[in-house]
Order: sequence, then C-alpha cells, then structure tokens
Amino acid sequence: MRFLELLPYFFVIAVAIAALAAAFKLAGWVMAKDMGTEGMRRISDAIKAGAEAFMRRMNMTIAALSIVLAILIFFGYSVLEGDINKAVAMTVSFVVGALCSGFAGYFGMFTSIRSNIRVASAARRSLNEALQVALRGGAVSGLLVVALSLAGVAIMFAMFGGLSTDGDRVTAVPLQIVGFAFGASFVALFAQLGGGIYTKAADVGADLVGKVEAGIPEDDPRNPAVIADLVGDNVGDCAGRGADLFESISAENIGAMILGIALYPVFGLKAILFPLVAGALGLLASIFGTWSVRLRGEEDPMKALNRGYMMTTGVALAGFFFACFFLLRDDAAPNAYLWFFGCGVIGILASFLFVWITEYYTETRYRPVQQIASSCQTGPATTIISGLSVGLECTFMPIIVISAAILASFWMGTEALKQLVADGVLNNHSAGLYGTAVATMGMLSTAGYILAMDTFGPITDNAGGIVEMGLKEEAHGEIRNRTDRLDAVGNTTKALTKGYAVGSAALAAFLLFSAYLDQVWHYVQIRGIDMSYDEVMRVDIGKPAVFVGGLVGAMLVFVFSALAMKAVSRAAQTVITEVRRQFAEDPGIMAGTSTPNYGRCVDIVTKGALKAMVLPGILPVLFPLVLGLTIRYFYPGSKTVAAESVAALLMIATVAGILMALFMNNAGGAWDNAKKYIEEGQYGGKGSDAHKASVVGDTVGDPFKDTAGPSLHVLIKLLATLTLVMAPLFIG
Amino acid sequence: MRFLELLPYFFVIAVAIAALAAAFKLAGWVMAKDMGTEGMRRISDAIKAGAEAFMRRMNMTIAALSIVLAILIFFGYSVLEGDINKAVAMTVSFVVGALCSGFAGYFGMFTSIRSNIRVASAARRSLNEALQVALRGGAVSGLLVVALSLAGVAIMFAMFGGLSTDGDRVTAVPLQIVGFAFGASFVALFAQLGGGIYTKAADVGADLVGKVEAGIPEDDPRNPAVIADLVGDNVGDCAGRGADLFESISAENIGAMILGIALYPVFGLKAILFPLVAGALGLLASIFGTWSVRLRGEEDPMKALNRGYMMTTGVALAGFFFACFFLLRDDAAPNAYLWFFGCGVIGILASFLFVWITEYYTETRYRPVQQIASSCQTGPATTIISGLSVGLECTFMPIIVISAAILASFWMGTEALKQLVADGVLNNHSAGLYGTAVATMGMLSTAGYILAMDTFGPITDNAGGIVEMGLKEEAHGEIRNRTDRLDAVGNTTKALTKGYAVGSAALAAFLLFSAYLDQVWHYVQIRGIDMSYDEVMRVDIGKPAVFVGGLVGAMLVFVFSALAMKAVSRAAQTVITEVRRQFAEDPGIMAGTSTPNYGRCVDIVTKGALKAMVLPGILPVLFPLVLGLTIRYFYPGSKTVAAESVAALLMIATVAGILMALFMNNAGGAWDNAKKYIEEGQYGGKGSDAHKASVVGDTVGDPFKDTAGPSLHVLIKLLATLTLVMAPLFIG
Repeated sequence: MRFLELLPYFFVIAVAIAALAAAFKLAGWVMAKDMGTEGMRRISDAIKAGAEAFMRRMNMTIAALSIVLAILIFFGYSVLEGDINKAVAMTVSFVVGALCSGFAGYFGMFTSIRSNIRVASAARRSLNEALQVALRGGAVSGLLVVALSLAGVAIMFAMFGGLSTDGDRVTAVPLQIVGFAFGASFVALFAQLGGGIYTKAADVGADLVGKVEAGIPEDDPRNPAVIADLVGDNVGDCAGRGADLFESISAENIGAMILGIALYPVFGLKAILFPLVAGALGLLASIFGTWSVRLRGEEDPMKALNRGYMMTTGVALAGFFFACFFLLRDDAAPNAYLWFFGCGVIGILASFLFVWITEYYTETRYRPVQQIASSCQTGPATTIISGLSVGLECTFMPIIVISAAILASFWMGTEALKQLVADGVLNNHSAGLYGTAVATMGMLSTAGYILAMDTFGPITDNAGGIVEMGLKEEAHGEIRNRTDRLDAVGNTTKALTKGYAVGSAALAAFLLFSAYLDQVWHYVQIRGIDMSYDEVMRVDIGKPAVFVGGLVGAMLVFVFSALAMKAVSRAAQTVITEVRRQFAEDPGIMAGTSTPNYGRCVDIVTKGALKAMVLPGILPVLFPLVLGLTIRYFYPGSKTVAAESVAALLMIATVAGILMALFMNNAGGAWDNAKKYIEEGQYGGKGSDAHKASVVGDTVGDPFKDTAGPSLHVLIKLLATLTLVMAPLFIG
Repeated sequence: MRFLELLPYFFVIAVAIAALAAAFKLAGWVMAKDMGTEGMRRISDAIKAGAEAFMRRMNMTIAALSIVLAILIFFGYSVLEGDINKAVAMTVSFVVGALCSGFAGYFGMFTSIRSNIRVASAARRSLNEALQVALRGGAVSGLLVVALSLAGVAIMFAMFGGLSTDGDRVTAVPLQIVGFAFGASFVALFAQLGGGIYTKAADVGADLVGKVEAGIPEDDPRNPAVIADLVGDNVGDCAGRGADLFESISAENIGAMILGIALYPVFGLKAILFPLVAGALGLLASIFGTWSVRLRGEEDPMKALNRGYMMTTGVALAGFFFACFFLLRDDAAPNAYLWFFGCGVIGILASFLFVWITEYYTETRYRPVQQIASSCQTGPATTIISGLSVGLECTFMPIIVISAAILASFWMGTEALKQLVADGVLNNHSAGLYGTAVATMGMLSTAGYILAMDTFGPITDNAGGIVEMGLKEEAHGEIRNRTDRLDAVGNTTKALTKGYAVGSAALAAFLLFSAYLDQVWHYVQIRGIDMSYDEVMRVDIGKPAVFVGGLVGAMLVFVFSALAMKAVSRAAQTVITEVRRQFAEDPGIMAGTSTPNYGRCVDIVTKGALKAMVLPGILPVLFPLVLGLTIRYFYPGSKTVAAESVAALLMIATVAGILMALFMNNAGGAWDNAKKYIEEGQYGGKGSDAHKASVVGDTVGDPFKDTAGPSLHVLIKLLATLTLVMAPLFIG
C-alpha cells in the first residue's frame, strides 16, 4: 500500500533518469558526427571561445547576486521569521534551483555550439541528415531541461519531508520549496536578459554598419562584429530559452503542487504528485517525438517537424489520460478524472491555437506581414507604424483563447469535484483552481519537444554562418541552400515557441497567484491573525492600496521593457562605434586583404551586455518588496492589505506582461518576415527602398522579439515565485 | 434656509452664465482684430472651408450613431428595466450630453479657425499682440467648454428632481443623469478619433511626400496636402481636445456627485453640489488667469503663460478653500473642511508634477530628448528604439505620483470624516472615496486655463502656416520669426496639457469606477438581491471571471491603440498616393507655376478619417457589453459576478490606458522635439542623415501623440460612463 502510494514518485524519478540517459545518448550521436573542414572549425572555435567566455562571466555575475539573495532569504526566514527549518528549506531549494537553472542554460549553449558545426558539415551531404543533427542537438537540451526540472523538484520535495506519512508535514512542503522556483526564475531572468541583450546588440550593431552603411551581406567575414553576432545566437536564443523553460516548468509544477494541497484530503499524495507525473509522461512523449522526425523525400522540413509535434501531442494526450485515470479518481468523485482530462485537453488545445495564431501574425503567407511589407514602400516611418499596430492588434485572439481556457478549465474543475464540494470536503474555489492547474500541465506536456524545435533555430542559423564564412565561395553550391532552408524553418519554430511560451505563462499565471494567496493564508494561520479564508483569498482592486498595487505592477512591465530595449541600444552603439573604427583604421578589412579583430567586438558586447542586464534584473525584485513594505508599515488597513496590494501588483503585472510580450514578440516576428517577403522579390526586392525600410523595421523588431519579449515571459514567473518567497514580509 | 441651501446651485448657474458672457466678450475682442492681407485671407478661407466640411460630415456620422444608441438606451430602460422615468432621464441626459459635447468641439474649431488669421495678422505688428490674440482665442473655447459642462450638469440635475426637498429623490438623481456624461464621452471619442486621424493622416502624408521625397519645406504651398494639414490642426487638436475636456469635466463632476450621495445625510445637498461649486470657482480663476497674461518686454512667451497658470492656480486654491469651508463643514466633523482642502491641494500638486514630468521627458533641455537625438546619428532604427524606450520608461514617475495622490487623498478623506465613521453615520470607504473625488476636483479646477493654453498651440501653428503661404517671401521678415516663437511655445503647451489630461484621467479613474460600483449596489437593492454592501462593492480579481474581465480590458486598450494607428497609416497612404499623382501629372506644381488641387486632398482625408474612426469608436462599447452578457448568461457565479467582471474590465483598461497614453504621448513628444533639437544645429542640423532619421521618429510619433494617445484619455472615461449606463444589464 505504501509502495503503491509512492509509485508515482518513483515513476517520476525513473523517467527523469531515463530522459537524462536519452539526452546523453542523443548527445553522443550528435558528437559522433564529423566537424567538416578546417575553415569551418576555425569559425566554430571562435564562436565557442566567445560564447564560453561570455557565459563564464555572466554566470559569475549571476552567482554573486544569487549569493547575496540566498543570504537575505536565510536571514529573513531564520531571524525575522524565526523558523530555522523553513530557512534551510527555502535557502537550499533556492540555491539548488539557481544552480540547476544556470546549468540548464549553460548546457543549452554547450550542445548548440557543438551541434552548429556538425549541422554545417552534414549539410554538405544531405538535407535530411542536417535536419536530424539540428533537431537532435536541440533535443539534447530540451530533454535535459525538462528532466532536470522534474528531478530537481521531486528531490527537493522528498528531501524536506514530502514523502513522510504525516499529512501535515507533507502538505507544508510545496510551500517551502518555492525557493527552487524562485532561484530558477531569478537566474533565468538574468540569463535571458544578458543573452538577449548580447545577441541583439551584436546583431543590430553588425547589421547597421555592415548591411546598411558598408553594404556587405549578412555573415560576411569582413564584418568585425560577425562572430559576436553568431555567438549571440548561442548565448541568447539557446542558453536564454533553456533557462526560461527550466524555470517555467519548475515554477508551474510547484505552483500546481501547492494547489494540490487542497485536494490532499481526497486524493492523498497523488494530487500533489500529479503535475510531476504528467510532466514525466510528457517527457516520454517528447523523446518519442524527437526520435521519430525524419524527412520524406524532398518535403519542406517544417512538415517533418510538425509531424513530430503531432506525434508528441498524441502520445502526451494518451499519457495524460492515464495520469488522470490513475491519480485523480476517487469513489467520492468517480468521474473527476474525465473532467480533469478535459482540462488537459483544453490546455493542449490552447497551446495549438497559440501556435496557430502566432503563425498567422508572423508568416509571410498571411495578411499582417504582407500589409507591413506593403507599407515599406512609403518608407521606414510607415513600416514602423504598421508593424506596431500589427503587434498591438495581435493581442486580441490570444487573450480570447486564454480567457476561454481559464474559464472553461476552472468550470470543469468545479464540475469534477462537485460532489466533494457539496459534501463540504473541499471549497469550490480550490476545485476550480485545480482545474486550471491541470490545464496548465496539459499545455506544458509537450515542452520538451517544443524546446527541441526552438533550439533548432539558432543551431541552423549558426550552421549557415559557419558555411558562409568557413567554406570558400566556390565550394558553397547546394550546401548554403540547404542551411538556408533549415534556417527559414528555424525562424518559424522560434516564433512559434515564443507563442507557446507566452501562452503557457498566461495560463500558468492564474495558478501561480492563487498559490501566492495560499501562501498568504498559510502565514495568516501561523501568525494567528483573526481573518477568514474568504477574506484572505480576495484581491479587491476596489481598495485604493490594492488598486495602486495594480498600477505599479503594470508600470513595472513598461519600465522593464524600456530598460531591456535601452540596454540593447546602448550596447549596440558601442559595437557600431567599434566596427566603424576598425573599418576606418584598416581599409584592408573591406578589401578582404586583412582579417578584422573579431575578438574586440566579442569583448565589447560581453562587457556591455553584462553591465546592462543588472538594472532590469533587479527592478522586479525591488518593486514588490518596496510596495509591500510601504503599504504594510505606512498605510492603514487590515493585516493583509499589503499582501493584497502585492497580489494585485503580481496579477496586473502578469496581465500587462502577457500583452506586452505578445505585442513585442509578434511585431518583431512580423517585421522580420516582412523583410524576408521583400527579399523574395516583392516591391522591388533586395536593395530597393522598400527593402531598406524593411531592414529598419527588422532592426527595431530585434530587441522586441529577442530581448524584451522573451524576458517578459521570465519576468512574469519571477514575480510570481519571488512573491511566494517574500509573502511573510507583507503580513501583520 | 431653503434659499441658503440652494445658494450653491444658483452660484454655479450664475458663474456659468458669467463665463459664457466672458467667452463672448473675448470672442468679440478677438473678432474685432483685423484679418491681414488678401493672400492670408485666401489661405484662411481654404482652411475654414475644409474644416467646416469635415466637421459637418463627421457630426452627421456621430449623430446617426448617437441616435441609434439613444434608442437602445430608451428601449433598455423602458422595456427591459421597466422604469419609464429612468428611461426618460437617461435618454434625455444622453442626448443633451451628446449635443453639448458636439457643440463644444464645433465651437473649439470655430473660434480657432477665426483666431488663426488674426494671430497671423497681429504678428505683423508685435509678438505681444499675437500672443494675446492666440491665448484669448484659445480662452474662448476654454471658458465655453467648462461653462457648458457645469451648466449642462447643473440643469440636468435640477430637471430630474435634484433640487427637490425629498432626500430619496435627490440622491437618486446623480445616478440617473450619467447619460449626460456617457453622451459627452461617446461623442468626444469619435470627435477625438476622427479629428486625430484626420490631422495625422494629412500631416504624415504631407511630410512623407513633401519633406522626404520632394525635399520641400513644411507649409510649402507647392505641397497639395498642405491645406489638409492645416485643417487637421483645427479639427484634431482644437475640436478634439474641446470635446475631450468637456466630457472629462462632465464625467468627473457627475462621478463625484454620485460619491457625494453617501455624504448627503451629513452635509445635505452641499455634498452633491460641491464638485460643481469647486468647478465654478476654478472657472472664475481661469477667466482671471487668461485675462492677466501679457508679455513683459522681450521675454519668452512661455514665461507669460506660466505666470498666468500660477495666477490661475493661486486664485483657484483660494476659491477651493472657500468651497470647502462653506460646503464641507459640519458640527459632527468640524475640521473636515481642512482635510478636504488638503485633498484639493494634493490634486493641484499632482497636476503640477504631471506637467513638470512631461516637460522633463519631452523638452530639448533634458536628457531623454537629447539621448534620442544622439541615437539619430546611427539611423532611423536606433531613433525608433530609443524613442520607444523613453516612452515606456517615462511611465515611472507619473504612476508614483498618481499612486501617492490616490493613497493620500483617500486617507485624508477617512481622517476628515473619522468621527462620522466612528458614529456609524458613514462607512470608511465612502469617506475615503470622497477624498479622492475632492482631489480630482482640485486637479480639474484649472481646466479652463489649461484648455486655453492647449488651443493656443494649433492656433499659432496655423498662424505660422498662413504667414508662410499667404505672404510673399520678401514680406516675411520678423513676422515668421514671431509666429515661430509662438509655435514653439504652442508645442510645449500642447505636450503639457496632454500630461495634465492623463493625470486627471488617472486620478478620476478611481472615482469613476467607485461610482460604477455604487450604481451596481443601487440595482442590487432595487432588484431585492440578497447580497451585502461589502460583497457588492468588491472587485476580486482572484475570481476567474473577474480576472478574465481584467485581461479583456487591458487587451481592449492594445487593440484600440492598434486600430487608431492603423487608421492613420491607411488614411495617410491615400494622401501619399494622391500627392504623388499630382506631382507626376503636373510638373508645374513643383516649379511653382501652377496651383495644386488642395481640395482633393482635403476631400480624401475627410473620407478616410470618417471611415476609419467607426471601428475603434464602436469597439469600447461592444467589449464590456459582450463580456458582461456572456458572463451573466453563460458562466456560473453570484448574481453580480458579471458586473464584477465588467468592473475589472473597466479598472484594468484604465490602468493599461493610462500607461499606454503616457507611453504614446511622451514618446511622440520626445521624437518631435528630438527633431527640433537637431534642426537647431545638433549632429549636422537640417538635411543631415541624423535629421532624416529624426524625421522618421517624428512621423512615427505623430499618430502616437495626436491620435492614439489623446483618444485613450477619452476611451478611459467612455468606458467608465458607459458601464454606468449599462450596469443594470449585468446584474441578476
């Protein structure tokens, strides 16, 4: 009986270990591929050196900040709160979460760097082989990230007493290991910011001087910033996204486990472990999906990837059904598992719709991109105006989808546990919330495959660069054509996964701030404050202090986006100055007779990005802290008014963050593809005035879609996890 | 005794009449000025014809839409709600509000058109005279708008029984005349959208083909779109802003009167009439202020305007003190008037700070604009990126100011009426809310002067155009220099009043949605729904349906902004095509030998703007309606869950709207001045690449600051007033 109860736990651990093994096996398969010519290796080595140097320095900065925070957390919980056990659990889980997140990011970069050149080399032989190497290279970090998150959360859970037979102890654990999620998000925010600033500063800098001023093509070896640009793809897209997805999965799993506490009296441990089991089954589905991808003849590689996605989804759905069947069934609620399976289907459906909507707004086949391209004919100003309006407009459908998903899954949750609510075992709100949590788990179940597809993008992008620079012009032939085809697919997958990331952040948001309110309720009980559950679980924005919290939360999103963009434009300015200087001082560079100093550009961007990431990274930590403490100590109200104000900050920041991220990601993606559309020959094609205008649009879109936008995904979750950790400060 | 009670009412009416008289006297003074040379009159007549044709056609469209809405309102209240008295009050007040708003806008345009040429003519004699004509021309519409609003609200109030001796009847009236505010906002939204789209489509179109492609200066008579551009200043800036301020004052006064109902048991009619009395005293202060402005020697005209602003503020403060002293004093709360005066001071202080912050972010003297100008050196892309980040960043300080003002005035309100709350006569929330209402009244008290300053901008802008086009080059001399100086001042005042408008919208927001909750509570009582006051007055975004309302509200702001901008870019495209066509078909135009067809451009913009304004105008009416009805009929929950969801829509839309408006107004203003800064000779001055980049920034900023941004101010208030009217639909 006891063994049966713990079976789901062991299953999770076993799957995580199996997935790690699969990741290493895949890595071995990729590494066994050859590394092409010496010229290619030279480029690859330069990229490797630059990326590793940046990651090393960035991780040092992050480590320093994390240590400070860890000490503060330990101090807060041990001295202020006076609970040494909690202090240890919070601090240890924070440190482990931060380390794992850092490792996930590092490993994402590590494998992608090593895959790039092998894809380039495989492209010399066949498109299919190149595709497989790229996808499996991406899958290595996809599997690793998901497995690491599952294993990390599971181990923390057991370590602090989650497997005990004492119910009170078990249900206290999820609220104590939120440090893990906080650590993960904290590191992820810096990784995404640092990497995002790096990649776009290098890209914008290289493009503006190279393409626009000097008139040389992309990836031209005469451009001194070209290596920095390629390094950027690895540290921004791969490492950043790896850390981002790691923290998403961790935060959402822990949040769902917290909501599961309410169901503990009914389903026992199973309710708390359900998110991890669903994740583990999704992970198996992703392994299966990535392994199955292969090209059929000369088809569009995107088709093969989509087939893999469908395969993954199908298997994940089946797995989800079993998870619901075995874990969420009880005599008191015999049909609950069906309703919960329905929630999971909603989550999966929502992720599909998000991907589809993103496609509509960012692909050249559809109207929005074509309209932007058409407005390029009247110059850069109209290009920008129409891109901005497409970005703002495209928030409509995703919000409708998310709203429907939240309402439907909440309602299904209450239907699932109707009888238990009627019997007074559960309250309606907890039942509904668990429904939204299950929907989120459904959405996350394909995360491994999605991350593999995502990492595919920068890998093929770099492979193209390596072919361009490492092989002589006359040797290109079919090869560059193949990497270009893969690169185009990579652009699509990158845009799609961003849609997926916002979608999951939006759906998860509701779960995460409900977890925060649970945390607040926990402390209200501990401190013996005389307030009812209903009073505490309420976030009434009709109260001035709470409304102000919402105002501040939305403003935080605007200011954060500003700082992220400003960081890119500042760091880009230094690159531009440096590239101009090199061109001016050594005319041999443009003539192709002397090699530019790539290292100096790499060095300049590294310094600029690290300096620029600190302020936007610290802001989201300071805002809730200052607001909560100000309201608590200086504003009259109930004992939880400060916590309620912080809840409003969190919720409205989430709303604003989702919208802003959608706006920035899609505007950026649409500009990018409007440029591609013109380059395909529309409105005068390459070199026309319309093309020049479209390059301006693309450049503006760069920090939108690759720095500020993705950082906002992380910001939302960071706010959720940090308020979970800081909650006790705002009560009393 | 009865006379004493009604004295404040008669005072308001008397001041409104006096102000109308003063406005006509001012108008007479302006009209008596001469109209310059025949060349100038020709240009002026062309502007007049274009503006009047547009206003006529726009008002027809608006009238048609308003009639449909009036019928729906009457039908809803008489048939669905079954209350014929209410139906009459709502419908009549809606129609009167709509008419007055339309008239306010029309009259704003009417006087500005007639002032332009007189300013141009006066500039031939002296700067001081031109300044006085421009400011007094602006003051005509400023006084008229404020007086009309006060008189309209006061008359509606009396007409439906506000002066009755039956307390129950009196306190029901403010909730019934919300139709007035709704009508005013509904018309104002279309006026602001239509005018805003017109002015920027013409401006962007004229600039892109004229300045960028053909290389001819601004206001060059060879540009076929130049008259349309000048027409735009009148119908966009003057008429739009007039309607905007009219609806702001109306909505905020009625909202404050609704909050005053709670204080009726204590202060009687005085609590409800206080907002009108404070407004009347502010109006007197504004008359005094505008009348006192004159230049001292060769000083900067801005100094004289600022002196007038200070003067107005001083007199308004004194008036405010007396209003508090005579109306908000009671034996049970002997010091209440001092606390409320404090709230008023907070409001006035907040408006000062808003103006100052706007100045910091949009003036060439300070860092933000200089940074944008510096980034122009690296081309349009960096110009746009840095402008966007300045716009996003500048939300920080205003939100801190507004948050502080809301918290402080709410707290002061509770302190003012502490004893009454302790005695159980009042609840704490109502007391605090009245404090925020009084602060809003403080902020609004200088509205008349502010509007005069604002209208000053487009008047001087047009005067410059008339001089440029109507006088021969050799006759310009000192004249153009004088109008340029006034125009520069006008740009500043336009930016400042936008800061003021957002500030007042933000502070008023809290008052308006509290009024909405009062309205909901009113219907809960009428329908005998068994819910407590506390339950109804709550907006708990922790509930899924309410959170979804918030999501949809924020999204509405994004989509609305998108549509507003898209409208400009579409209408501008048609102008560009037309101007290009005229240049191509008749080379004599560029040579200066034949006159371009100005009329066709005016016609094209008119049609384009009218067509484009309908969708964004209807959207904010549809969203709350569809959301509220969907939740009410399809989603399980309490009987007020739909009303609560709509409340969240309103509140989060307000938060998002304030931020978006700040972003757009300030980014637009900063780009505009970055261009001016470069034109003053920085970074190569006029004609340099940096200048070209800055023109792109300015063009992108145009629809930001003159279409979408100001329309958002109106949108916020429209949402508030329309939910007030629709409230009964969402309950039950």
